[in-house]
Amino acid sequence: MTQTDCIFCKIVAGHIPCYKIFENDHVLAFLDIGPVSTGHTLLIPKNHIDRIDQCPPNILAETAKVLPQLARSVAAAVDAPAYNILCNNGSAAGQVVMHLHFHIIPRHERDGVFTQWPSFKYPEGKADMLCQKINENLKK
Amino acid sequence: MTQTDCIFCKIVAGHIPCYKIFENDHVLAFLDIGPVSTGHTLLIPKNHIDRIDQCPPNILAETAKVLPQLARSVAAAVDAPAYNILCNNGSAAGQVVMHLHFHIIPRHERDGVFTQWPSFKYPEGKADMLCQKINENLKK
Repeated sequence: MTQTDCIFCKIVAGHIPCYKIFENDHVLAFLDIGPVSTGHTLLIPKNHIDRIDQCPPNILAETAKVLPQLARSVAAAVDAPAYNILCNNGSAAGQVVMHLHFHIIPRHERDGVFTQWPSFKYPEGKADMLCQKINENLKK
Repeated sequence: MTQTDCIFCKIVAGHIPCYKIFENDHVLAFLDIGPVSTGHTLLIPKNHIDRIDQCPPNILAETAKVLPQLARSVAAAVDAPAYNILCNNGSAAGQVVMHLHFHIIPRHERDGVFTQWPSFKYPEGKADMLCQKINENLKK
């Protein structure tokens, strides 16, 4: 259940140190050493899983159930009124370590972190077409 | 369990239309009408919950368990090799509708979406101090 070349598996095994925040049988939480905001924390399942779409239901459940209290505790530690939970899946989405992880990123008003939100509108008919395609995929 | 002034509660109740993708007793998924990438989907619990730190464990579990297959189906519909799952909690984190929601944002190589990642390094001693504070909060 570990991958020898995975830095997060090495952290789980204790072969690489981390700033540990929380640990139980299923998950580990530690500070991101390249934070985008103070307190930026990572939550990972201990088992090596590449991405959320490959995550067995029981492991995802064990991971998700840690999030509310962990996020609250991280945000409170830096007096942040808000936070992002971000899970990048695949290198094109910014995933750098290919071991499933959830970023908890404390946020303050006008902190300048993640200001980008390049939204657009669909042309006529596009949204219906997308719904249909996604629905077909869900039935596969 | 609904809030009269909440646009997502109105969508759940069928009072406002949506491009529906998936629905069960607990959750609803629909297209974001202001997408940041084609296929951008929102997954919400049907009950009104402001943020993940206020989410009862059973509702979070029901929501999380939909994510793997939904994310896979959304990404496949737009031939995306990757995707972000993003949950903004609090207005300072970019949460606009105060009803818990998970963005599923399909991503392609060099698509220019979310290029910002302003990481830094902690000064000596800061990470230890943060760990201690978060740990104390977790014990509260």
